[in-house]
Amino acid sequence: MSVPLDSKVFPITTAINDDGHLEIGGCDVTSLAREFGTPLYVFDGATLRNQATGFLDSFRSRYPESRVVYACKAFINVPLARYLAGLGLGFDVVSGGEVAVLRAAGVDLATVDFHGNNKTPEEIAQGVAWGVGTFVIDSFHELRLLDEAAGAIGRRQPVLIRVSPSIDPHTHRLTTTGVLDSKFGFPIETGDAEEAVRQVMAAPNLDMQGIHFHLGSPIFELEPYTEAIERVLRFAARMGEYGLDMRRFSPGGGFAIAYTEDDEPPSIDDYAKAIVGALTDGCAANGLPRPELTIEPGRSLAGPAGVAVYTVGAIKEVPGVRTYVSVDGGMGDNIRPALYGSRYIANVANRANDAATETVTIAGKYCESGDVLIHDASLAPVRANDIIAIPASGAYAPSMASVYNMNGRPAIVMASEGAATLMRRRESYEDLIAQDVV
Amino acid sequence: MSVPLDSKVFPITTAINDDGHLEIGGCDVTSLAREFGTPLYVFDGATLRNQATGFLDSFRSRYPESRVVYACKAFINVPLARYLAGLGLGFDVVSGGEVAVLRAAGVDLATVDFHGNNKTPEEIAQGVAWGVGTFVIDSFHELRLLDEAAGAIGRRQPVLIRVSPSIDPHTHRLTTTGVLDSKFGFPIETGDAEEAVRQVMAAPNLDMQGIHFHLGSPIFELEPYTEAIERVLRFAARMGEYGLDMRRFSPGGGFAIAYTEDDEPPSIDDYAKAIVGALTDGCAANGLPRPELTIEPGRSLAGPAGVAVYTVGAIKEVPGVRTYVSVDGGMGDNIRPALYGSRYIANVANRANDAATETVTIAGKYCESGDVLIHDASLAPVRANDIIAIPASGAYAPSMASVYNMNGRPAIVMASEGAATLMRRRESYEDLIAQDVV
Repeated sequence: MSVPLDSKVFPITTAINDDGHLEIGGCDVTSLAREFGTPLYVFDGATLRNQATGFLDSFRSRYPESRVVYACKAFINVPLARYLAGLGLGFDVVSGGEVAVLRAAGVDLATVDFHGNNKTPEEIAQGVAWGVGTFVIDSFHELRLLDEAAGAIGRRQPVLIRVSPSIDPHTHRLTTTGVLDSKFGFPIETGDAEEAVRQVMAAPNLDMQGIHFHLGSPIFELEPYTEAIERVLRFAARMGEYGLDMRRFSPGGGFAIAYTEDDEPPSIDDYAKAIVGALTDGCAANGLPRPELTIEPGRSLAGPAGVAVYTVGAIKEVPGVRTYVSVDGGMGDNIRPALYGSRYIANVANRANDAATETVTIAGKYCESGDVLIHDASLAPVRANDIIAIPASGAYAPSMASVYNMNGRPAIVMASEGAATLMRRRESYEDLIAQDVV
Repeated sequence: MSVPLDSKVFPITTAINDDGHLEIGGCDVTSLAREFGTPLYVFDGATLRNQATGFLDSFRSRYPESRVVYACKAFINVPLARYLAGLGLGFDVVSGGEVAVLRAAGVDLATVDFHGNNKTPEEIAQGVAWGVGTFVIDSFHELRLLDEAAGAIGRRQPVLIRVSPSIDPHTHRLTTTGVLDSKFGFPIETGDAEEAVRQVMAAPNLDMQGIHFHLGSPIFELEPYTEAIERVLRFAARMGEYGLDMRRFSPGGGFAIAYTEDDEPPSIDDYAKAIVGALTDGCAANGLPRPELTIEPGRSLAGPAGVAVYTVGAIKEVPGVRTYVSVDGGMGDNIRPALYGSRYIANVANRANDAATETVTIAGKYCESGDVLIHDASLAPVRANDIIAIPASGAYAPSMASVYNMNGRPAIVMASEGAATLMRRRESYEDLIAQDVV
């Protein structure tokens, strides 16, 4: 008999089984660690499905013309792309490489929105040739390149433009994007957005479909969305003078998740209510017809579904200072604590009923003091070979992973209804030199 | 006629040729960009050689029993390993993966020192089996595992122990390692170092050869070295009571380099004078015989030799705020600016004689505001397709590179006497899904 774990951070299927082991997707995490080795990333199929259908249902019940695209930058690979496409999601990409992954997965590229502040000429030409559904134009440079590339193969490329609404979403400075001082988008404030609309409308090979903005991530407040939507819709209405018929509208993503039990992110319904409300009101107020609405969850889909699993190695107690519990992964598979100061929690997967009576620092195996996964983690007493599970690790951990210190990147499995399927095998020593010219 | 560039940051062979193009290792950087594509990392063979022989000569002329090992974590691959081994260097590694790279390069593993706070049981067993010359023991956990692993194959494994001398080297908090509150090493202060000596001396399969410490990196001052050496030698003398005969001594690495023209790192001679002086004095004062001296330059070898080369794409001027010059690489190939706030300089490689009259922000192509390579770079006026060269990029850039946003990692070439040799090919779209289970 498994008992569900009471947590808002772990995947929805997380439970503790009769052996006192953590269970995800019906799979014993300790057994997964033994079978696939550690570090290991476990994705819970049910949580992915739950989040995907949560976004689809919550938005569509309020606004039927809603489209949900998964922001691949949170994490993508071939099996995940297939799984998410099967749930009815489209995709938001930011590079030719992400398009290539979706293509390898057999995803219909018409469902893809191509973002990015500096798409290369090659990415643009190839994206057009491959039939990427929508380009989200981010600069005048791209606008010209894209018009040429589409013209070169006789295509009229559907596009949105990305505007910058000068709204501060109060998140980490490294992940704030919708302010005036940003490399992203055409600022409304400076007139660049207006000029971009004018130029796109005049470009022979571009089909102007609407407007996109993105504020940053993760955003724990709703007001930035409603304020920005209001501002952008006013702008869209004003662009009527150039003949803009905004058929599509995208307020981006950036939806927050709980990384610790103390985090209180808005629910999907909260976001949907705020965004749909602001869109409906704004369209009415500005005399705009209702556009198709595209939202772009990435972190909020992959994040809660993924759990990082490590094995404990060396434990170093510095009396009166701190105890370092070193695990066999670290900043190479999850750079977020070092890069953003991100906070996580951890459980001991093989003794999940033990009370968290100690405060320790969970460090990695990388040769750098910044390689700490959790400062002051509350943890049950641990010893070497124990299995540590860190939830909310599905987004921006595997996707930003490096082979720093020549530690190969972890294996990734999907756990679902008691079965674990390998999504990505562990990187081998041979893989580490695959691009070397020897 | 090429005119040498007056810079302490660019590689020593850097010049400007008749076309006004930057030249490294006798190769036109603009031509390299065209031939190999961008982003591209160019290593100057002469600078690598100059730094390697600089360390060897500077230390050996003062202290003949000096051994210089390259800290692979700065950056290693198969061709670089061969090149450095050919210059007479040994190697310092921190993972089984780094050992595997050296092994693939045909390096004599007897020249290898294996560091790391949490070597896994597999890494330890395999390292012993492969004949890694020296293990630098970092924890009691490792001490037991290593003794067992060596015993299992009937080997007596030469070891050093890593002690923590409680010295603050005044570098970035993320890269400070020799303080008491560190995951690395046995603190002298708490008695753990003494206990480690005792246990190693008693371990049947371990051959205690000496002591290692490492303060952090980069260290711009000499005093932390001399203070720490003094403290560690006093400790070593005291360990005579357990029969310790310190035949080898390693004060680590951490030698600083110039990232900007304003940086004033000590010279190799400065470091050698300080370290050899402190070692000689300390041995005399404590009645210790002269041990073999091992130093571990990583950054100071690879760093100055490497130049990152990018192509300019979108340029976004936000009037009164800043101009963003976006290039085709960024935080994926160099995480240091985002992670440590590291500062760099840049030149326009295809118009290297143009005066730097503008102040711009050089951003990458990654979908994140933190993806800025240089804030407020002094640069000649640029336009799309210009080639940007960022020096001092050889260390901790390619080695920490990710495929974030599914941008493949850059190609790397070695430029030497007018010829460029590919050391690593660009990561392809196929490579990005090589580990996916499809």
